[in-house]
Amino acid sequence: VEAVDVAQLDALLNPLHAADVADILEQISSDERAALLALWHGGIDGEVLSEIDESIREEVIEALPDNVVADAVRELESDDVVDILEDLEAPAQEKILEALEDADRVAVEQALAYPEYSAGRLMQRETVVAPEHWTVGEATDYLRGAEWLPDQFYHVILTDPRMHPTGYVTLGRILSSGRDMRLKDICEDSFRTVQATDAESDVAYIFNQYHLISCPVVDDAGRLVGVITIDDAMNVLDEEHEEDMLRLAGVGDEASVSDGPVETVKQRLPWLVINLFTASLSAIVISQFQNTIATLVALAALMPIVASTGGIAGTQSLAVAVRALATRDLTRANAARVVRRELVAGLLNGISLALILGVAGSLIFSDWHLGLVLGMAMIVNQIVAALGGVLVPLTLERAGLDPALASGTFVTTLTDVMGFFAFLGLATLVLL
Amino acid sequence: VEAVDVAQLDALLNPLHAADVADILEQISSDERAALLALWHGGIDGEVLSEIDESIREEVIEALPDNVVADAVRELESDDVVDILEDLEAPAQEKILEALEDADRVAVEQALAYPEYSAGRLMQRETVVAPEHWTVGEATDYLRGAEWLPDQFYHVILTDPRMHPTGYVTLGRILSSGRDMRLKDICEDSFRTVQATDAESDVAYIFNQYHLISCPVVDDAGRLVGVITIDDAMNVLDEEHEEDMLRLAGVGDEASVSDGPVETVKQRLPWLVINLFTASLSAIVISQFQNTIATLVALAALMPIVASTGGIAGTQSLAVAVRALATRDLTRANAARVVRRELVAGLLNGISLALILGVAGSLIFSDWHLGLVLGMAMIVNQIVAALGGVLVPLTLERAGLDPALASGTFVTTLTDVMGFFAFLGLATLVLL
Repeated sequence: VEAVDVAQLDALLNPLHAADVADILEQISSDERAALLALWHGGIDGEVLSEIDESIREEVIEALPDNVVADAVRELESDDVVDILEDLEAPAQEKILEALEDADRVAVEQALAYPEYSAGRLMQRETVVAPEHWTVGEATDYLRGAEWLPDQFYHVILTDPRMHPTGYVTLGRILSSGRDMRLKDICEDSFRTVQATDAESDVAYIFNQYHLISCPVVDDAGRLVGVITIDDAMNVLDEEHEEDMLRLAGVGDEASVSDGPVETVKQRLPWLVINLFTASLSAIVISQFQNTIATLVALAALMPIVASTGGIAGTQSLAVAVRALATRDLTRANAARVVRRELVAGLLNGISLALILGVAGSLIFSDWHLGLVLGMAMIVNQIVAALGGVLVPLTLERAGLDPALASGTFVTTLTDVMGFFAFLGLATLVLL
Repeated sequence: VEAVDVAQLDALLNPLHAADVADILEQISSDERAALLALWHGGIDGEVLSEIDESIREEVIEALPDNVVADAVRELESDDVVDILEDLEAPAQEKILEALEDADRVAVEQALAYPEYSAGRLMQRETVVAPEHWTVGEATDYLRGAEWLPDQFYHVILTDPRMHPTGYVTLGRILSSGRDMRLKDICEDSFRTVQATDAESDVAYIFNQYHLISCPVVDDAGRLVGVITIDDAMNVLDEEHEEDMLRLAGVGDEASVSDGPVETVKQRLPWLVINLFTASLSAIVISQFQNTIATLVALAALMPIVASTGGIAGTQSLAVAVRALATRDLTRANAARVVRRELVAGLLNGISLALILGVAGSLIFSDWHLGLVLGMAMIVNQIVAALGGVLVPLTLERAGLDPALASGTFVTTLTDVMGFFAFLGLATLVLL
């Protein structure tokens, strides 16, 4: 880039896959990106725009000449255009909508009319259908004569005369069957449809659970309106994982390594401020025991051990529960048993840690009362941690909220407060 | 189950998809499972065995009569049998291998000869190939005449006479092209192969990055030995996410909600004991400042605020870094910039929190010196947290270790120790 040599850039970047070009654009700094795009945009096609991370897509689109953007989006399928448009501000959206041909623009605008994160946004409107009474031969002739077919399709969807999908046939089955075979007789068992208004997370779950490759989408009246393919579902699954992991850690779910420092602060500071207040609860608890601490200052040094081990235990229990909720392995049917399991596991962990810490504390401070207090506080806090880790996300889920959201801060606060309270409270009772 | 009514169980469970039957088996208790399986095993086919979670698969296989297991595995494709065998103990493995026909047993044993978590274990050996000089017509006739084809296949792989794959054609393209078209001329651009010895995580990355549907697997000599399909890659991706999330939380990566309390303790206790020792570091740091605390007991109450806010900041920075390493968005090329970004973001977060906490502390304790100490300690610890969160996983990655493993405990210890040290150290300097 520094050498301002377009030919060399062409030679370097053109042979790369769109996903790799997008990765390069993401990894260089914002200034380098502007310089690169000003010099070179021959290879920025629709695919590169699709691949690029949302956090810098707007920047890239604005840096490009209008005609490059127009050419790029025109070659994309409707679901990819929708995916790009969703995250853009109004002026950049306009720029792209204007570039589309009328028919495409209408299709994209219809897709945008579905709620965000719905199957309707995810689907491509281009489908390959056949009347259910057709034979393999008729379908083959139709496909061979078709002017246009989607880039990727894996099934021929069968519909009744009113466009209700009734089954689908894999291309492999069509290719391997005789021409006289009726499509109806070689349908897949796995056939199911989703509603355009279904949440995309439910769609991803269905793909993962039933190993689907593609799935027809129907409207309220049960009529075929599009199809979702596994690559889109895989994408959603990937984003959901990211969301869970980042939310659990208290970061805005659109955090990315290509964000600048100011965006990073915007995503993280709110949780830190909330934590400042929740941590003040711990401070208030501790300050109730100032007299105890003044009498035995060693307590101040020991109290973080109980709290921090509780924090780790809470995080463990929480991670397992959030993951199980996401994969729907934790449901109403087994919630009571999982909670009981956590209770027993917390008790056993607590006893083990209490033995180690109690003996060590007794020996180091030559005071078995102190060891006893440490051990008892540890047992209490391990139980609180194990239960909190599963009950907090379960409660959030029941309340219709994301179980990953805020539960990290919540559980840690719980284990901190209970850890300090149990330890200092017991110390006041036993040692003074 | 309690009513001991087989017919009713049949009516309930038979219409369900294998994945749903597996979910039911996972969610009921171990006793219920044994009772259910003793009564009802008509619907336990190979698919159910594939779907069931590893943590209870062995239990299920041992509970079933030998002939049911034998029938179940015989209908599976080689990659699914391998997947089941991998996690079983020797006696259960034997039971399954004996049930297979000779040809299948050899195929499965060959697959098991590849290293664990390699492409060779993941692939199915059943492929659909055509000589590269064939036309669409020849391929269609061959497919129509084939005695056996895999359940799922999306491409016909082209090979040269020595079985080196040279390209592939989608079934959609074959169906829509004229009979005289040469397969070579309608190959996909996206074609790439993986080595049988490649790590399955690399394979999943390639599928996700290049939106592949299937990918031929070659041996050291470049000869075709199998094919990996997107559903297997999706599975790997899902498991990797689970691993990252659970490891980050310090839980064994095979933790599941269907584990019993004893297994749960086994997975979690080791990390808790490690944390007991790392937390002792905090205790040692604090005990160095016993005189300071004895002079001003309020410090004991305030010190967890600095430590815990640092812990949250470290977790935030860590989650973003681990995720970015997993998606390969954080590489050598941008590591320096990301670290710089974290430094600036940590500084900005620190200053913001310092202002809030400093002012609040000054007002509540009517002592601006205390507010100053709180604020300064907060800034130091926020920077440590932000840097630690990215440098710890980067260092683990460079050392060839899993960046998620242990980094949670490590970063929290760092922020705890530094938080206590900065706060009490500054307090000793400024306040005494």
